[in-house]
Amino acid sequence: MTKKAVVLYSGGLDSTTCLAVARRDGFQPYALSFRYGQRHGVELEKAVANAPLSGAVEHRIVDLDLRAIGGSALTGDLNVPKNRLGDKIIPVTYVPARNTIFLAVALGWAEVLGTFDLFIGVNAVDYSGYPDCRPEFIAAFERMAALATRAGVEGKGRYRIHTPLIDLSKGEIVRLAADLGVDFTLTHSCYDPDPQGRACAACDSCLLRLKGFREAGLQDPICYAEHKETL
Amino acid sequence: MTKKAVVLYSGGLDSTTCLAVARRDGFQPYALSFRYGQRHGVELEKAVANAPLSGAVEHRIVDLDLRAIGGSALTGDLNVPKNRLGDKIIPVTYVPARNTIFLAVALGWAEVLGTFDLFIGVNAVDYSGYPDCRPEFIAAFERMAALATRAGVEGKGRYRIHTPLIDLSKGEIVRLAADLGVDFTLTHSCYDPDPQGRACAACDSCLLRLKGFREAGLQDPICYAEHKETL
Repeated sequence: MTKKAVVLYSGGLDSTTCLAVARRDGFQPYALSFRYGQRHGVELEKAVANAPLSGAVEHRIVDLDLRAIGGSALTGDLNVPKNRLGDKIIPVTYVPARNTIFLAVALGWAEVLGTFDLFIGVNAVDYSGYPDCRPEFIAAFERMAALATRAGVEGKGRYRIHTPLIDLSKGEIVRLAADLGVDFTLTHSCYDPDPQGRACAACDSCLLRLKGFREAGLQDPICYAEHKETL
Repeated sequence: MTKKAVVLYSGGLDSTTCLAVARRDGFQPYALSFRYGQRHGVELEKAVANAPLSGAVEHRIVDLDLRAIGGSALTGDLNVPKNRLGDKIIPVTYVPARNTIFLAVALGWAEVLGTFDLFIGVNAVDYSGYPDCRPEFIAAFERMAALATRAGVEGKGRYRIHTPLIDLSKGEIVRLAADLGVDFTLTHSCYDPDPQGRACAACDSCLLRLKGFREAGLQDPICYAEHKETL
């Protein structure tokens, strides 16, 4: 029997791949996106365009303006840092408690849908060093979820946060996405696109994406504002 | 030195009392409310009116429309049950994962403010049986928070969720609120107020509030749609 799963789905490369994995593994994906004041709103446009193509049964967008609490270059006035990948510090693009917040809303929707399966495309190999992308965080969230909800307390099941990408390199993610038929032109990664929506090729997220395509031996078909060859 | 604390603040009796306790205990309260599609929007009006009077340093309201995920009488089209207090089942006014979601956003704001102290006015004695009001849920959230955030991971402190009301009866909460000078006319509890904002005197929340005032030997000064004497 096909089971429902709530899939956190930003429209980025990782979450789009994660959605494809959920579908491959026999789940009916219920895709969940957030309009949270992110400066790269084009990501959400891609999510809307791609959701029906990628087998999502439903796609909901929750409005949650995290600019109200501030604290991040992704939602505020700070500049997105460029060409800094490899620094060991957690960068200013970190959005405080973002994955906790997103998983909490996903948990609520899962409870409404009557499912115990959630998917999130976090990755702890080629990533920006965000604390809420690590396996120990995910495990702690699962333990909390069991106590937070009616369904958990009534013993109807145990929430599971699936993280199919967590141990993959960016190259492996690109390869997996290609194998699953992900349309890369409908994914967006750049934190700081230009007014035309073209990727900057210099923020952490662009650098990781380009590294992934290089490792996978593939060409990235999306538009960059500058020639990739200059990187 | 006075420490900052994020206080979840709905405008209800419990969270208003919780805010007063945070202030009494020497914290600078940063009050956080949500416009989440609740049918009792009058609660939020009270919160806005009362926040400056109750010593909140700041009061922010985050828009987060939980109607997008549905599943509750408080945000949807289900009827609010009346005169049912004492049933052992979790009622339809339960909002899936609400406290998890609210605490997650509070955690994000705490990180931005550089504080590790959060307050929530949950109560596990005279309550509706919501799972996310129990001490074991709060403890699990604290453990998760330590792993979710930059501040936690960098070892700058350990998040503490203060729950000063968790072991109090509703009568004790009313007494505490009175002792701390809470203006009861600026608190709202009813899940199903009439168009004039008057309390219904029959939903769980009204029944608990009235029980509290009775136990405390005080008169509730707010407006009810029907005479309390008839209850």
